[in-house]
Amino acid sequence: MEKPTLPKGTRDFGPAVMAKRQFILNTIRTVFQRFGFLPLETPAMENLSTLTGKYGDEGDQLLFKVLNSGDFLKDIDASKLETRNSKLVASEISEKGLRYDLTVPFARYVVMNRHEITLPFKRYQIQPVWRADRPQKGRYREFYQCDADVVGTDSLICEAEIVLMIKEVMQHLSIHDYTIKINHRGVLNGIAEQVNASGRESDLFVVIDKLEKIGEENVRNELSEKGFAAQQLDKLFELLKTAGTAQQKLNILSTSLASSTSGKKGIDDLKDVFKLFEHYQANSDHVEFDVALARGLSYYTGCIFEVKINNVAIGSVSGGGRYDNLTQAFGSKEQLSGVGISFGIDRIYDAMEELNLFPKETLASSKVLVCHFDDATRHYVLSMLTRLRAAGINSEVYPDIAKLKKQLDYANKKNISFCLVIGEEEIQSGSLTLKNMERGEQEKLSIENIIHKLTH
Amino acid sequence: MEKPTLPKGTRDFGPAVMAKRQFILNTIRTVFQRFGFLPLETPAMENLSTLTGKYGDEGDQLLFKVLNSGDFLKDIDASKLETRNSKLVASEISEKGLRYDLTVPFARYVVMNRHEITLPFKRYQIQPVWRADRPQKGRYREFYQCDADVVGTDSLICEAEIVLMIKEVMQHLSIHDYTIKINHRGVLNGIAEQVNASGRESDLFVVIDKLEKIGEENVRNELSEKGFAAQQLDKLFELLKTAGTAQQKLNILSTSLASSTSGKKGIDDLKDVFKLFEHYQANSDHVEFDVALARGLSYYTGCIFEVKINNVAIGSVSGGGRYDNLTQAFGSKEQLSGVGISFGIDRIYDAMEELNLFPKETLASSKVLVCHFDDATRHYVLSMLTRLRAAGINSEVYPDIAKLKKQLDYANKKNISFCLVIGEEEIQSGSLTLKNMERGEQEKLSIENIIHKLTH
Repeated sequence: MEKPTLPKGTRDFGPAVMAKRQFILNTIRTVFQRFGFLPLETPAMENLSTLTGKYGDEGDQLLFKVLNSGDFLKDIDASKLETRNSKLVASEISEKGLRYDLTVPFARYVVMNRHEITLPFKRYQIQPVWRADRPQKGRYREFYQCDADVVGTDSLICEAEIVLMIKEVMQHLSIHDYTIKINHRGVLNGIAEQVNASGRESDLFVVIDKLEKIGEENVRNELSEKGFAAQQLDKLFELLKTAGTAQQKLNILSTSLASSTSGKKGIDDLKDVFKLFEHYQANSDHVEFDVALARGLSYYTGCIFEVKINNVAIGSVSGGGRYDNLTQAFGSKEQLSGVGISFGIDRIYDAMEELNLFPKETLASSKVLVCHFDDATRHYVLSMLTRLRAAGINSEVYPDIAKLKKQLDYANKKNISFCLVIGEEEIQSGSLTLKNMERGEQEKLSIENIIHKLTH
Repeated sequence: MEKPTLPKGTRDFGPAVMAKRQFILNTIRTVFQRFGFLPLETPAMENLSTLTGKYGDEGDQLLFKVLNSGDFLKDIDASKLETRNSKLVASEISEKGLRYDLTVPFARYVVMNRHEITLPFKRYQIQPVWRADRPQKGRYREFYQCDADVVGTDSLICEAEIVLMIKEVMQHLSIHDYTIKINHRGVLNGIAEQVNASGRESDLFVVIDKLEKIGEENVRNELSEKGFAAQQLDKLFELLKTAGTAQQKLNILSTSLASSTSGKKGIDDLKDVFKLFEHYQANSDHVEFDVALARGLSYYTGCIFEVKINNVAIGSVSGGGRYDNLTQAFGSKEQLSGVGISFGIDRIYDAMEELNLFPKETLASSKVLVCHFDDATRHYVLSMLTRLRAAGINSEVYPDIAKLKKQLDYANKKNISFCLVIGEEEIQSGSLTLKNMERGEQEKLSIENIIHKLTH
């Protein structure tokens, strides 16, 4: 029999990796809850009618489809089968697909539960998603998304709180050198108006979004090829290069974009968001108003966000923005405005690993291994184990009778911090040997003192 | 456009349900970690070659298969397609399936990582699994399993600790009226020998397993139909009806099964497990030696466990046992003995709901809603919100300018415990109105006193 393998682009997370992932996820979850977001989970499988058409043609191609169970070929038309058209046949033999993101299931949930939901509705969702992408470094076919969204209000308080949440997450993860880029679709639309490109916003934005990656010259070339004139591009770059602090840029652009309704709205919103930081007694450290930030997703309509950790070669670790029509794709006529943020766990993990930021305590292990040597002492040894656990200390016993060296090896390999060595002599005296595995030191202490030492 | 729906047998978990589910999962996770088990996660999709043949024919039928991506029909033989044999075609167009349980992925992980793993290996795993079962009350196509297993040792300490873990979980969930049934495959084999049914153990066990459900008479009838003689059945029920405390039953059966090697081994193991409870300074309350406990899964070879919550019409909420050949199905020649336990979250949830056991604090909500009434007070209101959050109090602000009634309604509907009402007067005096939403009472307090009150 061949050795088993994992499907391409998927991963196991063993204990050491899991402990670090849990540290990140717990941090994000705690912050989400601190800000009043409540948990939602949706099924891994959704009807394909729910998923299809929501992510563009390319997205549809990347959906994992689940084969109908039972005799799935029974009712399919022979003529369809003979076409050998995979797309056509797929729709006949598969009616479910795996979740591609958390936004569409969230919208589907809101539509299905609209009458039970109290608006504004603040939900967070931390679950894996699946995409049939070509696997490559840092890109997987199964990965977690961590989203928080509030829908049913257009208050800019929500935008401000999203920035505050990002800052709180970063602080708790000990990531200190990062930038939260913020921009507004209104500003981008205003710029489009200024360069006479109204109606061609998305042509423009898609290329502008690459500015940081490919540089001004390449952006100019791409836009020229798309038919933008040199004069338009000069004007464009004049606006994109607006320099200064956020306040200075906002002031300059409020003049440059004064004639554009959406430009003005964008600038006013951003000014208000920055003012809100003060109201929250927070500063705007780390927050950069980036006129060139566009973000690909076309459904954003207001503020947009993107977070980068500086000095690591990793793309953005978080992004989001405001959208106006969450549920429209499901035929809902109600216009539900919302704003959300999504954290990319895999990238945060890689960055923290590179910057060596994981706290030592996230190492996955018991704190104490209790060592024993024969059946005669088992009674005593296990009662000590019970006392450690009752004190809330994660601990285990080496379950077999084995030499001390083997037991210490086990503790070392598993990163267990302390070994409690108990033999006849220790039982007689009540003074147990506590061995610090990292320092190699050992001392003799009563169980009370050991518990005190390990819990204080 | 039609209203969206969920795939049959799947569920959304909204905030209120999620909070309770998280309470159960966190409890189990904490206990697993207290006993030295470390987390593992495996991908939702496994190769079908990993999954197929591990769950019997019926299990294979219930696997959800994922359609190969891209042009999956391109290379398939026309003659195969023309057979219209769904099973044959499925194997051509699908090479991945969804996880059906957590044991097979665990075994696959151990085989693939055998050289990095330190034995004994204690892992827990809490993830959803998928089965194309016919959906019915309490049976879903997606549901969580919570497993803990230790492999690489046959020490009975592991069996004892599994029972202790179950007791700890139950205690933390405030479930006090429950029974942990324990038996041993050796005892069952010994009984089979005594009734001259060696070689027909599984015929026997499958029916015995139903004893509690269908009663003695039906079990007798079923076994008669399978060709067991009245004399055999009389002997069988004599043994199954062995009465008394665990110790008494063990003593009686150690005589009745004295001539059977496996019977003797089973009794000795169980005696040792009960002795171990004493060594752990634990009692054997809730633990019942049930000679008729068989459990369906044929791979168990030693102790078997099953947990029932008494006085609720819900099947077993947990079960497990010892197996001898975890990795054999993957061609591994190493005989890895292990023992594991699995908790069924959905049933525990239903039982706790029925018994009204969820603590009030698991209600999903912020603790405080900060209410405000105009832009002029926004500055002050938001700075108070920052102070609450900095003190670790989950809190939110009603983001829009709205009448008090609307804001209080929102808090009520979302089960928020307190409203902090701040108007001009409150700002002048620094004495803020804290409204207890449950009792309807309100008092005026400084922010310091409010924080103290809510965190002590």
